[in-house]
Amino acid sequence: MLFKVEMKVNLPTDMPADIAADIKSREKAYAQRLQENGKWRHLWRVAGSYANVSIFDVADNAELQDLISNLPLFPYMDITVAPLCRHPSSIREDDS
Amino acid sequence: MLFKVEMKVNLPTDMPADIAADIKSREKAYAQRLQENGKWRHLWRVAGSYANVSIFDVADNAELQDLISNLPLFPYMDITVAPLCRHPSSIREDDS
Amino acid sequence: MLFKVEMKVNLPTDMPADIAADIKSREKAYAQRLQENGKWRHLWRVAGSYANVSIFDVADNAELQDLISNLPLFPYMDITVAPLCRHPSSIREDDS
Amino acid sequence: MLFKVEMKVNLPTDMPADIAADIKSREKAYAQRLQENGKWRHLWRVAGSYANVSIFDVADNAELQDLISNLPLFPYMDITVAPLCRHPSSIREDDS
Amino acid sequence: MLFKVEMKVNLPTDMPADIAADIKSREKAYAQRLQENGKWRHLWRVAGSYANVSIFDVADNAELQDLISNLPLFPYMDITVAPLCRHPSSIREDDS
Amino acid sequence: MLFKVEMKVNLPTDMPADIAADIKSREKAYAQRLQENGKWRHLWRVAGSYANVSIFDVADNAELQDLISNLPLFPYMDITVAPLCRHPSSIREDDS
Amino acid sequence: MLFKVEMKVNLPTDMPADIAADIKSREKAYAQRLQENGKWRHLWRVAGSYANVSIFDVADNAELQDLISNLPLFPYMDITVAPLCRHPSSIREDDS
Amino acid sequence: MLFKVEMKVNLPTDMPADIAADIKSREKAYAQRLQENGKWRHLWRVAGSYANVSIFDVADNAELQDLISNLPLFPYMDITVAPLCRHPSSIREDDS
Amino acid sequence: MLFKVEMKVNLPTDMPADIAADIKSREKAYAQRLQENGKWRHLWRVAGSYANVSIFDVADNAELQDLISNLPLFPYMDITVAPLCRHPSSIREDDS
Amino acid sequence: MLFKVEMKVNLPTDMPADIAADIKSREKAYAQRLQENGKWRHLWRVAGSYANVSIFDVADNAELQDLISNLPLFPYMDITVAPLCRHPSSIREDDS
Repeated sequence: MLFKVEMKVNLPTDMPADIAADIKSREKAYAQRLQENGKWRHLWRVAGSYANVSIFDVADNAELQDLISNLPLFPYMDITVAPLCRHPSSIREDDS
Repeated sequence: MLFKVEMKVNLPTDMPADIAADIKSREKAYAQRLQENGKWRHLWRVAGSYANVSIFDVADNAELQDLISNLPLFPYMDITVAPLCRHPSSIREDDS
Repeated sequence: MLFKVEMKVNLPTDMPADIAADIKSREKAYAQRLQENGKWRHLWRVAGSYANVSIFDVADNAELQDLISNLPLFPYMDITVAPLCRHPSSIREDDS
Repeated sequence: MLFKVEMKVNLPTDMPADIAADIKSREKAYAQRLQENGKWRHLWRVAGSYANVSIFDVADNAELQDLISNLPLFPYMDITVAPLCRHPSSIREDDS
Repeated sequence: MLFKVEMKVNLPTDMPADIAADIKSREKAYAQRLQENGKWRHLWRVAGSYANVSIFDVADNAELQDLISNLPLFPYMDITVAPLCRHPSSIREDDS
Repeated sequence: MLFKVEMKVNLPTDMPADIAADIKSREKAYAQRLQENGKWRHLWRVAGSYANVSIFDVADNAELQDLISNLPLFPYMDITVAPLCRHPSSIREDDS
Repeated sequence: MLFKVEMKVNLPTDMPADIAADIKSREKAYAQRLQENGKWRHLWRVAGSYANVSIFDVADNAELQDLISNLPLFPYMDITVAPLCRHPSSIREDDS
Repeated sequence: MLFKVEMKVNLPTDMPADIAADIKSREKAYAQRLQENGKWRHLWRVAGSYANVSIFDVADNAELQDLISNLPLFPYMDITVAPLCRHPSSIREDDS
Repeated sequence: MLFKVEMKVNLPTDMPADIAADIKSREKAYAQRLQENGKWRHLWRVAGSYANVSIFDVADNAELQDLISNLPLFPYMDITVAPLCRHPSSIREDDS
Repeated sequence: MLFKVEMKVNLPTDMPADIAADIKSREKAYAQRLQENGKWRHLWRVAGSYANVSIFDVADNAELQDLISNLPLFPYMDITVAPLCRHPSSIREDDS
């Protein structure tokens, strides 16, 4: 089951560089692990911003909450979620 | 080059049914043709709405304008566009 | 799987009374059928408005879209959707 | 008398972990006590957020204010309230 | 139990004058009846607008919905509602 | 001359408790003094918030500014003001 | 007593030209009469729009409502009002 | 050439009193100097706020930017600007 | 003197095709005339929309109002205006 | 390929002056280098603000992201981006 997730990162500008680097490094590892196991199906940077557009593929709402709330950057992001489903005009078998 | 495009359809509630059906039929054919030639890469329905989230893959901004402004439903939609690019944490080779 | 759905009705003020009555009658029958089969778990009027707050219990996003887009009042409503899941502090076994 | 209450938690990102843990622990105990005595009828997590949707069942507006303003997380939350009443299409006897 | 109710009137500019006059006349009679029986406690015009700020005194949310949804101008107004209760600094015995 | 004034209090969450208590105590004394002399005609808590709805009765705009800008909580509040006047449907002699 | 009044004109695009011309002509005469008697102290066009910024000088809120609600264009305008008073840094004797 | 300028002051609530007093004192002197030389034509307090509505009379956009960006309170204000010109219904010769 | 002007076209969807074509044709001729005489310095389509971003070069606010209010599409557009001036980091001599 | 980029600078008001000066100096050098190599085609100050309107000319979305995210002021700015293309009424050969 697919969800569009948009994340905008707002790190405090006075956060020490090493702490920020650590959080970002853990975020990257976490994001790649979820991509590898198919939960985080797409991940794009929005050009001109510190934000992304993502497509998650989860079993249900509870799994979506579990995956998002464990993002290392979770406390520093504005996040919006939209449930998706197959579009009647879609020709892609795997987009539902 | 990828763009996220969100479309919300607002057909007038007093549009005659046959005219609406004709526009929707042409919209569907148009959308499927663009999906087949790879320009309209993803097309999802937003659950609970008459709206979609799409990913377009175009040569440049001019082609994006050309494809969107020729949508049969174009005069009846609120459309927002966001330019996308490869995310540094993405592991998908074809998501850029 | 639960979703909060909020619906605000905007019937055209010049819609003939019999047509409005017919749509509302079909909406009521539809809403009661979905309540009876457990899909529309809660339905409250927002006091001072022509709007409701609802809780839907569906198998997945596709079923949510199917149920909402077939509402007789669908073309006349502003609808917002939020995916819900069990809250860690909840003590109700059936609220997840 | 029912109210929909939506709460979005905004803990300062620099709050010491033990203080945050203490507030959350008191919030959980408070929320469960109110659920047990029937005042906090439903409590759902909004998937993908640090927010909830709740249904309160109170004697009047004054009790609503009393219950909400004593939440341990009250100073850290954006809260919106909507008065609810029985919907004419509802079939649930206890949803009013 | 008190509620602040704000109403903004949006009559269609092409409504025939006699129909508008009839609705306004019924609205005035209705408003004065509710003021006389104490349900509509205060009614002020917002200067420079076709809008009012009102204080309703009702038994519960259901009565609020009943009174507001029967306003002759109801289909033509944007209405917002806020539940009120006694302020701890208030010195008026009857403002709760 | 009447004005609706809405005040939303945003005390910094890290303000020392004794300083907050002092400001609130002075605010309460100030609010009660203005109620006693008839300038602050109504004062209600908005249920579920740290906010109030008030009706001020002042000689002119300058007095409104004088009274509001001297509120001890003034630097910590979002305040909105709306000028009121007698509503043509009002039956209360003193609501103008 | 001064008020800033901003007016944005939204004439229906299908209003017959002679009716529009008549309303505008009456609006102009009305605006000039109020300027001549000192009630409408300033009237500026906002460049690039069909809108104005005005300063009214009235006895009280009731007069403001009376003057604005009798504007021939009143049913076709979005209007916002802000009460003004003397600024402590102002050096103009007549700006209060 | 006239511009409406609206300024809302947001001084940090923890700014030391003497620093705030110094900035305000320099702001006042600056504002009065610009009023004396005719650049800052009108300056009103918005009643019930720490904000003003002003009319600037400048040679061009560059002078507007120069005057505003040198306000001692500039870093602490939300500022909006609207270009004004003579209104066709105005009867004041000097309001253009 | 430069202004950024953004225009969003909202032609009624039921406007007869020949009337729409006539307005657009006159708009195009008008826009090209203003470009040729240097008043309309830049004109870009916003990709994915029926909107443009423009840079006008005018003598003053009054000329801006004159040029914009005479656009054939003026009654059908949402228009926003921002005054521009030379940026201290600009290296283009003609961008002021 | 052109993009309109709008940047609003929000430097913390308590940033030490030398640090702010250093960031601004690096921003200026960076902006001028990009103007010299043709990537940052236009740069205007919005009069009355600490903001700019810019036109970027880039090979693709990825280059836009690269150029913007490396701005020394990037962590301190609100940035919005709109993709542009040739307008059918434009007469400038180089505005596409």
